[in-house]
Amino acid sequence: VPELRIAIVTFDQFNELDSLIALHMFGRVRGHGLRAEIVAPSPDISSLYGVHLRGVQPIEWAKDADAVLFGSGRGNRQAILDPQLMERVRPDRTRQLVGSQCSGALVLHRLGLVGEGPICTDNITRRAFVELGVPVVDRPFLLHDGVAMAGGCFSAQYLASWVIRRLCGEDQAREALQYVAPVGEAAQYVQRMEAALAAASE
Amino acid sequence: VPELRIAIVTFDQFNELDSLIALHMFGRVRGHGLRAEIVAPSPDISSLYGVHLRGVQPIEWAKDADAVLFGSGRGNRQAILDPQLMERVRPDRTRQLVGSQCSGALVLHRLGLVGEGPICTDNITRRAFVELGVPVVDRPFLLHDGVAMAGGCFSAQYLASWVIRRLCGEDQAREALQYVAPVGEAAQYVQRMEAALAAASE
Repeated sequence: VPELRIAIVTFDQFNELDSLIALHMFGRVRGHGLRAEIVAPSPDISSLYGVHLRGVQPIEWAKDADAVLFGSGRGNRQAILDPQLMERVRPDRTRQLVGSQCSGALVLHRLGLVGEGPICTDNITRRAFVELGVPVVDRPFLLHDGVAMAGGCFSAQYLASWVIRRLCGEDQAREALQYVAPVGEAAQYVQRMEAALAAASE
Repeated sequence: VPELRIAIVTFDQFNELDSLIALHMFGRVRGHGLRAEIVAPSPDISSLYGVHLRGVQPIEWAKDADAVLFGSGRGNRQAILDPQLMERVRPDRTRQLVGSQCSGALVLHRLGLVGEGPICTDNITRRAFVELGVPVVDRPFLLHDGVAMAGGCFSAQYLASWVIRRLCGEDQAREALQYVAPVGEAAQYVQRMEAALAAASE
């Protein structure tokens, strides 16, 4: 099985769920060749609620990735003010899947990857877009010109499912979600995920 | 607001979702006095899918906690074979809320806190209990003599909601879940959580 790489770009003060739900779901199907890594501007980063990750991959690891996802967190608003950092994290849409989780949409917008919207993001980041005059949808998952955006921490399951589906297939996307769903709720979770993905480009 | 402490006992090779969904939800309502910490036998621990936490609290931090939750992961099966470690993590049910996530139920069972079941756990750990002749329910959340057990990674939302409800109240439990739900699905998530908690001791 060839290695398919997924970079989850994560800045300081990151949202634990927004980066790690996706990482975990990719891990569940690593037998299909997926390898996901947190990438960040420094090897040690701290989360919103006080956990400290050490030894994460450098931003440059994302250059050769098959998919690049932008995580969320308080640090994103600082990050988008740094033009050099923004160039370092710029993905290549011609050969990489690109997506964002919650305030990761600020990075996509800054990089010009989602035009003038509409945007899908969390209810806090929504206000920043509304101030900019950029429309925000009331949905958990959206595709804009092939770029994916998810809003609300647990919508990370939809973003991860979309990546798995695109890189491995529909069966593997279902498999990953079934592993992580609450006992007795796997069918419901799969159904909601498939509905969210189906509605994404309506 | 007095500080209410929640220890999430986490061993090496831990499941990222099982420890961090709860941690994050507690963080969302920290304005109500909650303080949650990952505690582990060593300050640096690694997860199932390759993230490394540094500087987590020692196991002893759990002694004065108001709630003690046992996370999940590959290391749990090793941990329960170590009688000294088991005594170090033993909670005091007379003054602490106690709960487990997925294979954390192995620890509760080892400590004699859930008798001979029934148990609530994930579909993999289920097999270990079935081999021991201990019954396992097909539900995501269960209370056994006041001890809580959740099964399937995303059922961490039910376990965390139960703790928040017990320590802060029903409104705060709803509030935490609304923050983390996918955009547009908050009401559904709250409804499912309340149904899971209501069914927990039936």
